[in-house]
Amino acid sequence: MTLNPADEKLAKRLPEGVLRDLSPAYLEEPRGRFFGQAGLIAAPRDVEEAAAVVRACADMHVPIVPRGGGTGLVGGQVMSDGPAPLVLSLERMTAIRGVFADEGVMLAEAGATLQQARDAAAEAGRQFPLSLAAQGTAQIGGVLSTNAGGVNVLRHGNARALCLGIEAVLPSGEIMHDLKRLRKDNTGYDLRDLLIGAEGTLGIITAASLVLAPVPAETGVAMLVVDSPEAALRLLSLAQDRMAGGVTAFELISGQGLEFLSEHFPQIRQPFETRPDWMALVEVGLPAGLAADSALEELFVAGAEAGLVSDGVIAQSGQQAGEFWNLREHIPEANRAVGAIASHDISLPLSEIAGFIRDAGTMLAEQGDMWINCFGHLGDGNLHYNLFPARGRHRDDYDDIRRDLSYRIHQMVVARGGSFSAEHGVGRLKTGDLARWGDPARLAAMRAIKQALDPAGIMNPGAILPISG
Amino acid sequence: MTLNPADEKLAKRLPEGVLRDLSPAYLEEPRGRFFGQAGLIAAPRDVEEAAAVVRACADMHVPIVPRGGGTGLVGGQVMSDGPAPLVLSLERMTAIRGVFADEGVMLAEAGATLQQARDAAAEAGRQFPLSLAAQGTAQIGGVLSTNAGGVNVLRHGNARALCLGIEAVLPSGEIMHDLKRLRKDNTGYDLRDLLIGAEGTLGIITAASLVLAPVPAETGVAMLVVDSPEAALRLLSLAQDRMAGGVTAFELISGQGLEFLSEHFPQIRQPFETRPDWMALVEVGLPAGLAADSALEELFVAGAEAGLVSDGVIAQSGQQAGEFWNLREHIPEANRAVGAIASHDISLPLSEIAGFIRDAGTMLAEQGDMWINCFGHLGDGNLHYNLFPARGRHRDDYDDIRRDLSYRIHQMVVARGGSFSAEHGVGRLKTGDLARWGDPARLAAMRAIKQALDPAGIMNPGAILPISG
Repeated sequence: MTLNPADEKLAKRLPEGVLRDLSPAYLEEPRGRFFGQAGLIAAPRDVEEAAAVVRACADMHVPIVPRGGGTGLVGGQVMSDGPAPLVLSLERMTAIRGVFADEGVMLAEAGATLQQARDAAAEAGRQFPLSLAAQGTAQIGGVLSTNAGGVNVLRHGNARALCLGIEAVLPSGEIMHDLKRLRKDNTGYDLRDLLIGAEGTLGIITAASLVLAPVPAETGVAMLVVDSPEAALRLLSLAQDRMAGGVTAFELISGQGLEFLSEHFPQIRQPFETRPDWMALVEVGLPAGLAADSALEELFVAGAEAGLVSDGVIAQSGQQAGEFWNLREHIPEANRAVGAIASHDISLPLSEIAGFIRDAGTMLAEQGDMWINCFGHLGDGNLHYNLFPARGRHRDDYDDIRRDLSYRIHQMVVARGGSFSAEHGVGRLKTGDLARWGDPARLAAMRAIKQALDPAGIMNPGAILPISG
Repeated sequence: MTLNPADEKLAKRLPEGVLRDLSPAYLEEPRGRFFGQAGLIAAPRDVEEAAAVVRACADMHVPIVPRGGGTGLVGGQVMSDGPAPLVLSLERMTAIRGVFADEGVMLAEAGATLQQARDAAAEAGRQFPLSLAAQGTAQIGGVLSTNAGGVNVLRHGNARALCLGIEAVLPSGEIMHDLKRLRKDNTGYDLRDLLIGAEGTLGIITAASLVLAPVPAETGVAMLVVDSPEAALRLLSLAQDRMAGGVTAFELISGQGLEFLSEHFPQIRQPFETRPDWMALVEVGLPAGLAADSALEELFVAGAEAGLVSDGVIAQSGQQAGEFWNLREHIPEANRAVGAIASHDISLPLSEIAGFIRDAGTMLAEQGDMWINCFGHLGDGNLHYNLFPARGRHRDDYDDIRRDLSYRIHQMVVARGGSFSAEHGVGRLKTGDLARWGDPARLAAMRAIKQALDPAGIMNPGAILPISG
């Protein structure tokens, strides 16, 4: 179906005062791989206005690009070609509609930032246990639409697991009211989880009912030196056996990452005098009556006895715990300062990780001189496997092999039952990967669902699925 | 579209040896409200045979009723009218394809019973933390297709939260291969969660990748006497604050339920000499180094200090813990022995529960002489709110008001933001409730998805959505 650009004719059909000035800020994504276009920018104040905007676009066959904080890394938030879309920004729908501390539930509008949601939970003596580097800017609607992950997935799941219900505008312009504060509700198809992770291609989430978790009575963090990713995984298994689900984060950090850090952020104190090849950042949240530092110390002893841990340091204060996390969170920044040849947001079955790291390292050594920084959410099997130019060389020197390197890495991941997009989504960057490696029956069903809910193809065209003829 | 009965012509198109004898066992459901029909019973041995059966039915427009253990309570497993369907039983697909203890993952075929899956996990030193009364008969495929709940949802979520991926036959007869052992995989629409809870109307789950959880180092169970459901909820909140997610079950038991138990199961020892009006069964799973009985004792003391708990008993052994659970699990059996006028599987936002119980009690007192047994998974807001004839009367005496009573109860639940089906699903019993109380935009989207994936309407017709013209 032919789509039309968002123009003056459409503008006249929109609710009064909903338009914003065109600004490049709405057309950018963090890595600069895509630059969007827009005919109009609309920022509705409530769900009825959002629905009116969608209805107008549906009537006139104008594409809509929903926009949250714009922090996504796969180009889901920018439409580079085709007729100039209407960008629908959720920036004015930022209310925390209610916090139900005793229920462990919060109702937040889609434009509230993740940080806002976390703060509102903390004020009520609870936590919203989704945490990622971009949380000051990323918005709840985007976090859900991309099913964001982050560092606490091991304990609390992805964004999808933290959402009980949504309010959304469907591509028809109808409002779906499903903002339930219920842990159990088996009344038909799970449209909530269908819209979550659909990257704005099946509708626009305007508000969500979110899970709040209790704040653990005791928390602690340790950095533990391990010989290998395999040892780290065995340590994780040991930790989970001991902690009854109390392991809230388990991050793998490589010696290469520590080296990048010391080059670009020398002010960040590194915990070990000799730089280890691998270390794990372990965070626990424990019941009252069990001191976190002694539980971590016992884990260290058990890990050392099992030959898995050779050195370690346990945070002695909340401030020191914060410093450990600060180190972890600066790794992506150091990576940016170095300038990656290629980045991969992959996941693997846990028992395939060590083999993948070994084989991928061998393969890359044959491809040319480069550095690998492999780090990330090991407990979830989610690695950020990033390649960097060797000293004295520049990322541009690898232009001719970049695509091939990524193809080979993704191929190795898929062959081991892994995913070429663990937490970032498909967006416009990985539509080719999805078409290549996605299961054909699943892809056919996805296309059928897209066609059924958005027959005119106006919702974020080109994201996830290519625009159909 | 007109559907045709499963007959000899279809039989000739099916894989060799896939048919079973017609037997009434395939046509029953536990409460005897529906009695099914079947033209043919097919039991494929693998997913390819299952796909061949579905393709044959799709070609000939023959309805298919997928059948697991047959324990569902809403008639999803029996098609009472229309052309005689093919019943597709998963009984021959019972393999545990793999247990990956260190990953916390198991691959199970749909016909494996829940108990089989739980046993396989236990053998590997892990747990599959989904537990419900029918687990010896209920099969994994049915458990997922109905998104079953049970007693550990508070800690581990519903069936949906325990599934990482599925293998399924879609209504077209295509096989969707999505049996991933991944915690993170953001590669397009969440078809897994769409088929989970779709009660066999969008396809047939033939195998699943399931989450295994660590077995907590310390576990314990207590029965605590509380004044009211409200006090129980405040106690739950207190327990969660102390246990950092270590509360694995929190069940509400009413004095009425205890009375039914003492009448029909006098051999089950009741924990308190004076029968309390309300009590909570609290189960905890805790890290190494924190004894469960002392943690429960401290909870008791804190609860007593807060005026929430007046008496309690903590299991002193695994055997006694088993006795506590045995008491809880016999409540539905005692209910069946009494014979309910009407049962309601409802959920409410936690802060609406006390008000609902109060108002519903008042309403019912005006409607006639009856007993209420209100019990269930309080931590999930999921109550089984069941009505029984007063002494000397019989459930048939209430025939003329039964429907009206259920209508009023569901109406009160929905008005408080609750659900008329918390964990049992819609099946054929509650299609009217869904049509009445479901959000119109959500229902329209559900119909569009059904039409898109199953245009001939062959998959479990009449379940969830009425058969369309």
